[in-house]
Amino acid sequence: MDISKHFLQSQLDHKSSKSLYLQIQELITAKIMNHSLPPGTKLPPERELASLFSVSRTTAINTYRQLEQQGLIQTKVGSGTYVADHSPNALNTSLPMPWHQLFSPYPQSPVSSILRELVSTPTSEYNISLAAGMPDPKFYPFDVFSNLFQKNSSSIDLNDLGHISTEGYAPLRQTIAALHCNKTTMPTTPDNVSILSGSQQGLYLLSKIFLQPGDCVVVQSPTYIGAVQVFHNAGVRILTLPANSSFPFSLLEDYLIRYRPKLFYIVPTFQNPNGRVLPLSERQELLRLAARHQLIIVEDDPYSELYYNEPPPPSLKALDNHDGVIYLGTFSKTLFPGLRIGWMVAATPVINRIALEKQYVDLHSSNLSQWLLHLFLQEEALQTHLVNVRKEYKKRRDAMANSIRRHCGANLDFSLPSGGFYLWCKLQTEVTSPVLLHEATKNGVSFVPGEAFYTDQSNLKELRLCFATHSEDKLEEGIKRLAKTLSSFDQQHPGPIKSNFATRPMI
Amino acid sequence: MDISKHFLQSQLDHKSSKSLYLQIQELITAKIMNHSLPPGTKLPPERELASLFSVSRTTAINTYRQLEQQGLIQTKVGSGTYVADHSPNALNTSLPMPWHQLFSPYPQSPVSSILRELVSTPTSEYNISLAAGMPDPKFYPFDVFSNLFQKNSSSIDLNDLGHISTEGYAPLRQTIAALHCNKTTMPTTPDNVSILSGSQQGLYLLSKIFLQPGDCVVVQSPTYIGAVQVFHNAGVRILTLPANSSFPFSLLEDYLIRYRPKLFYIVPTFQNPNGRVLPLSERQELLRLAARHQLIIVEDDPYSELYYNEPPPPSLKALDNHDGVIYLGTFSKTLFPGLRIGWMVAATPVINRIALEKQYVDLHSSNLSQWLLHLFLQEEALQTHLVNVRKEYKKRRDAMANSIRRHCGANLDFSLPSGGFYLWCKLQTEVTSPVLLHEATKNGVSFVPGEAFYTDQSNLKELRLCFATHSEDKLEEGIKRLAKTLSSFDQQHPGPIKSNFATRPMI
Repeated sequence: MDISKHFLQSQLDHKSSKSLYLQIQELITAKIMNHSLPPGTKLPPERELASLFSVSRTTAINTYRQLEQQGLIQTKVGSGTYVADHSPNALNTSLPMPWHQLFSPYPQSPVSSILRELVSTPTSEYNISLAAGMPDPKFYPFDVFSNLFQKNSSSIDLNDLGHISTEGYAPLRQTIAALHCNKTTMPTTPDNVSILSGSQQGLYLLSKIFLQPGDCVVVQSPTYIGAVQVFHNAGVRILTLPANSSFPFSLLEDYLIRYRPKLFYIVPTFQNPNGRVLPLSERQELLRLAARHQLIIVEDDPYSELYYNEPPPPSLKALDNHDGVIYLGTFSKTLFPGLRIGWMVAATPVINRIALEKQYVDLHSSNLSQWLLHLFLQEEALQTHLVNVRKEYKKRRDAMANSIRRHCGANLDFSLPSGGFYLWCKLQTEVTSPVLLHEATKNGVSFVPGEAFYTDQSNLKELRLCFATHSEDKLEEGIKRLAKTLSSFDQQHPGPIKSNFATRPMI
Repeated sequence: MDISKHFLQSQLDHKSSKSLYLQIQELITAKIMNHSLPPGTKLPPERELASLFSVSRTTAINTYRQLEQQGLIQTKVGSGTYVADHSPNALNTSLPMPWHQLFSPYPQSPVSSILRELVSTPTSEYNISLAAGMPDPKFYPFDVFSNLFQKNSSSIDLNDLGHISTEGYAPLRQTIAALHCNKTTMPTTPDNVSILSGSQQGLYLLSKIFLQPGDCVVVQSPTYIGAVQVFHNAGVRILTLPANSSFPFSLLEDYLIRYRPKLFYIVPTFQNPNGRVLPLSERQELLRLAARHQLIIVEDDPYSELYYNEPPPPSLKALDNHDGVIYLGTFSKTLFPGLRIGWMVAATPVINRIALEKQYVDLHSSNLSQWLLHLFLQEEALQTHLVNVRKEYKKRRDAMANSIRRHCGANLDFSLPSGGFYLWCKLQTEVTSPVLLHEATKNGVSFVPGEAFYTDQSNLKELRLCFATHSEDKLEEGIKRLAKTLSSFDQQHPGPIKSNFATRPMI
């Protein structure tokens, strides 16, 4: 076979530091790999190869020697040089990989289907999603980060971009410990702080270090479902406490005695989804009860800095003299999710054990994010930013509340939260929230139906609306579309539609 | 009690958008929280508070009302206003949290103690560590990243800094899929690619989706121990294949029939620690065997771009027509570890299942790193960088090799690897590598003793030296110190020292 046609266009770079024989070898390898030169192709003798590329005979010999060592060609004595059979030829008769049989069992979370359906809702310019709990990208202080990057990139210690300790970039741990010291009577040192790749990672690692199949965990109901999914995945039994009224201490105490749960997961401040704040007196009562029973409290606190009236009471962690509270913080709601940085404050034995687990998961979190965040906190840019977003989100909360009052009237009930991202609404009509969602998406607005926040019952009359992501105008338009959808049910015979959806399996 | 002394210095900001009553409330809250105003302290009547801060009576009333709602003060009718008992006072009599009893069992990896000892070696300016497998920070192309950040920060789509898909930033997945397409005959689409928070995370997630306690896994011996630790943590049985000679196909086939292992973990190119390259013919034979037995091959490939002679043969993934190879790549060795970005190329069902698991672990990897890396790859800056570091690391490899020949003579044997970061050496003297390490650290040089790479036997005569991290001068000095340590054993009676260390529990 005349292989010269494959290389007519090829130019060797005689000025390159790479030897000519390596350059030729790479050209031939590429042709063999892409099957331009299939197995069995006879290659020219060394002398012809040399003249084809205008190189010395030695170069041609070296080229073939390399290719032969790689197993890409073979020399048959007395016959010539051939492209070797490098494809695993027995394979075509093998069975395909049975991936789904090879996977370990995946505990399907009961709410996955709801969330999947929601996520699969086609997003378009027209659709207004009030579902995701995301800050408005317009408020991301990326320009501040960009300036900090520019200002500090020449003075960075390059060692800080290598492997750092699993617990986090030391200056950032220090800064976060100092922030906590300002708020609490208990001392917080960097040894009490672990940087996480988002607070979600904290929940995951806590489930790894504390939970074994068969353990019990207490959560509020409704609550943030991402936490429940992680606990569920650990194979534990979930016990629930109603979260829509004052704190049910006697029920919790009953659980503590009867089931000895491993931990209690709570969002005490601007709860997701219901926006409630656990009053100080109940915080203290809860801490007393936890200490008496040596119950671990996992305090998830994404929203406490996002208050729109007076500041909320001190965190459980700040009030905890027993050191049994494990605090999770995040910058995903206050700054932007793409930083992927959250943190944990806890007793040192917990931080140490978390690090042993985290090193398997990702060795440590992104140094770039940690370095930038440290610079940001150092400049006290966080406070400035918070003052600004509090003002904006407050306007949006009020705008959404007013729109609902104006357009939905008596159909939708809610109480105004004093912070956070959400209005937690109750339908006062016949229609259920899954049915409403189904129709609302057709009208260009979406939300999270309340059932997505429950594991223990099927509440079909609640829904969560996020007021943080969109401008006041867009919120008004979104609520108008919701109101239009709601009123369309008033004019219909609700019977068949309801039963149609009510018969699908509900959690 | 006259509380006025606590607030003499306090200045209210009358121009602030924050109401005066909130400002006063915050001042008093701070004093209560830090116990300057302990529980039971009588607070001045509203009228006095008003005059203390020169505010209206209404402001004073609002202040107290807020503090009372927070539970920080209480009003006793007919008596006055007091700081409430806000500390959980039952706590002092509670038992401390029994953290170590609450943790789930931690499977201690047999090599942890060696690595811990190594890491705990005091680092100083003087000490030269040849232990860590780290690129030289001097070569980190951070200036290129910094320029890319500056050039592109104004045109970034802020939505890309929000939550993105768990599988990764779409343009980066696309770029990496395209890089793989260039090297393989199998098509690679973005659906075959998942971005990871370092390739370590890939190992972790693979252990989650494939391994259950009691399963078997095959690894080479010696091998990268970070992988073995993850598998060990999953509760599996580890089967080993000797990696210091040609590939033992009949032993692997015996394992496949006898134990039906779930997967085979291999670093086929510039193996860690021994630097070997699996020849093309053995790659093909391995793929045939794997396809016949539907064995999953996990190909860990951190070093293949770091070649110092001819390029290595194509990856197992590139040769695999059966789609049973799961490929792990990383930028930690070629660029810098602090990016925390690795990637997986695999059949789409694997990528999908990995995403379900990864969303629990960290939702998705850092957007900042992914965005920057995508820009870097787009500019084709990677090839330029690789050409440069290959040249530098080759010089270092040769410098270290020459230093060893010059200073250690017949005491230390090795073969020159054609890529990667390490010289894998054999001691030709009486001393064992743990004993040598113990003495070497006193002389200001450290390395990883060979036993750290074995799970199945105790080879005390090997050691791994990393030539990537230090300059040629420093490598020469490090090897001189090692040679000095080695020769000190020649002059000693080695008996007692050896037995002293040989009696400690070995793996």
